[in-house]
Amino acid sequence: MGGILAPRGEVRILSAAAVGGHEERRGPYGERFDLCGEDDRFGQTSYELAEAEMARIALSLSLGKLGIGEGALDLLLSGDLQNQCVASSQGPACARTPFLGLFGACSTMIEGLGIGMLALSGAEELSLVGVVTSSHNAAAERQFRTPLEYGAQRTPTAQWTATAAGAMILGRCEGTARIAGFLPGRVCDAGIRDAANMGAAMAPSAADTLLRFFSERGGAVEDYDLILTGDLGQEGSELLYTLLSREFPTLPDRHKDGGLMLYDRKKQDVHAGGSGCGCIASMLSAVILPEVAAGRITRMLAIGTGALMNPGSIQQGGAIAGVSHLIEIEGI
Amino acid sequence: MGGILAPRGEVRILSAAAVGGHEERRGPYGERFDLCGEDDRFGQTSYELAEAEMARIALSLSLGKLGIGEGALDLLLSGDLQNQCVASSQGPACARTPFLGLFGACSTMIEGLGIGMLALSGAEELSLVGVVTSSHNAAAERQFRTPLEYGAQRTPTAQWTATAAGAMILGRCEGTARIAGFLPGRVCDAGIRDAANMGAAMAPSAADTLLRFFSERGGAVEDYDLILTGDLGQEGSELLYTLLSREFPTLPDRHKDGGLMLYDRKKQDVHAGGSGCGCIASMLSAVILPEVAAGRITRMLAIGTGALMNPGSIQQGGAIAGVSHLIEIEGI
Repeated sequence: MGGILAPRGEVRILSAAAVGGHEERRGPYGERFDLCGEDDRFGQTSYELAEAEMARIALSLSLGKLGIGEGALDLLLSGDLQNQCVASSQGPACARTPFLGLFGACSTMIEGLGIGMLALSGAEELSLVGVVTSSHNAAAERQFRTPLEYGAQRTPTAQWTATAAGAMILGRCEGTARIAGFLPGRVCDAGIRDAANMGAAMAPSAADTLLRFFSERGGAVEDYDLILTGDLGQEGSELLYTLLSREFPTLPDRHKDGGLMLYDRKKQDVHAGGSGCGCIASMLSAVILPEVAAGRITRMLAIGTGALMNPGSIQQGGAIAGVSHLIEIEGI
Repeated sequence: MGGILAPRGEVRILSAAAVGGHEERRGPYGERFDLCGEDDRFGQTSYELAEAEMARIALSLSLGKLGIGEGALDLLLSGDLQNQCVASSQGPACARTPFLGLFGACSTMIEGLGIGMLALSGAEELSLVGVVTSSHNAAAERQFRTPLEYGAQRTPTAQWTATAAGAMILGRCEGTARIAGFLPGRVCDAGIRDAANMGAAMAPSAADTLLRFFSERGGAVEDYDLILTGDLGQEGSELLYTLLSREFPTLPDRHKDGGLMLYDRKKQDVHAGGSGCGCIASMLSAVILPEVAAGRITRMLAIGTGALMNPGSIQQGGAIAGVSHLIEIEGI
């Protein structure tokens, strides 16, 4: 049936880095990014290649914080929203570290941290494992919906795909945080067919994962300083509270959502909040892990939330299923 | 730097199943598939959903051979060629087993077996891990190239995307074969820009992986009863022999390619051979693993070969990189 997986020995997050675009720089935590681009192009000729370069830079910065180069990595786990994950293969994977591509939609960073935990637990040969995920607003919008130049009107539940990448280096030695558990999510299909309402598509799977976690682990929401979801946005967060109102009535007190952290919804026209693989990746790297390192968060859950669809599957009448992977993070 | 990863304890392939379409039934090993569809639709309304159903059936059959149902699986690893891997999320993952999506293009089955080995090695909580990959000719051609109805002329180096799925169940108990090692591949970009020549795009990465493997493990090609590549086809296999002619001049004696096994190129109009995630998945499941179980193969290498691209990346002038993951398989 599959439950919470524990690491063998210590698996730690040794360093992390976040890179964003110009809209992300304007957000409440814009100054905490390691680097923000001026024009979302990162010196490249297309937005797709810009995403690849942004992800590559994030990996490079996370390695730089450890004083090592890309050759020191034993394994790279990476994924993104572009068809066939080409931002990963054209970006961070180009450095020729052994590379495993992942696809968990916007949950990919947490999937990667979980698989990284399993890999370090299972293979003594591995010392350093990198995890990178990215998304790019312009690349994602023209792939999944319409090119930005069309100026299509967005609905209130629509979210703003983050132009952001996050990279983390996992290992067994001195680090800022420990991964204490991994709960892979199950696919939950609530019949949502609106590609402009990802929050509704993902909330049932986030609820399912939280219910499975607490049903096995016991305890209460209050045992955790923070329960972070990836990118449910306003719509999805409210749905999550509603779905869990009986089991976890105090969830809103401990919950934050990466999609609601990334932008200032009063000043930035992002509607229901941010989304994309880069959302939880950058907020974890730039904002949350430094809080863990500083001792202000000692125990938390990070839940990556992904919506599983492509434009063709929606045109064919398919529903948008969700999947939400969870990791437990503890301070050292 | 990353080398060969060994399992902790035994990681075994407990069962395997292969499902194919009507063209696959006509191939040299058509009768060894567990099931072949009459019309490549598997009762579905689209080729995309047909692929999802085919993958679901393969998983179901592999579980059935162990006398268990989908609820017995602890973890499902799955991926495919459809954008955002929707064949996996709409197919085998629907059964609500905890699900991690993978993308390694046509190398995904071997990536999945490798990650499955790491997961079973790293997490004692896991007993049974399923790995499923699939591809569908009609779904892939209209996504990557042109709809079949266009009747576009194919070049001699073009391959035929297999309508096939393979599923394997991994565990620690009695099985037919053991996974003795996993070498994740590196991305190799040889500058190939022809979407009708996947063999050339993948051959350099297969050569890179074989060189890395033997450089670490030592020994000779003759130590293995079989060196199986996924879907290099005729063009890619010949390129591989050329690339390795100095190091491994006897490679052709021990090498087979899933893409060259799947069809009878004299009778079937598949040009350079088969390809797709379902190619090595089905040939391993239907043909090779039974040989291991029967003791006719005692030690072999299986190398999944993937081409990393999407139509947009090629239209933007990007090259098609390759990645090739390797697992060592031994008889029990």
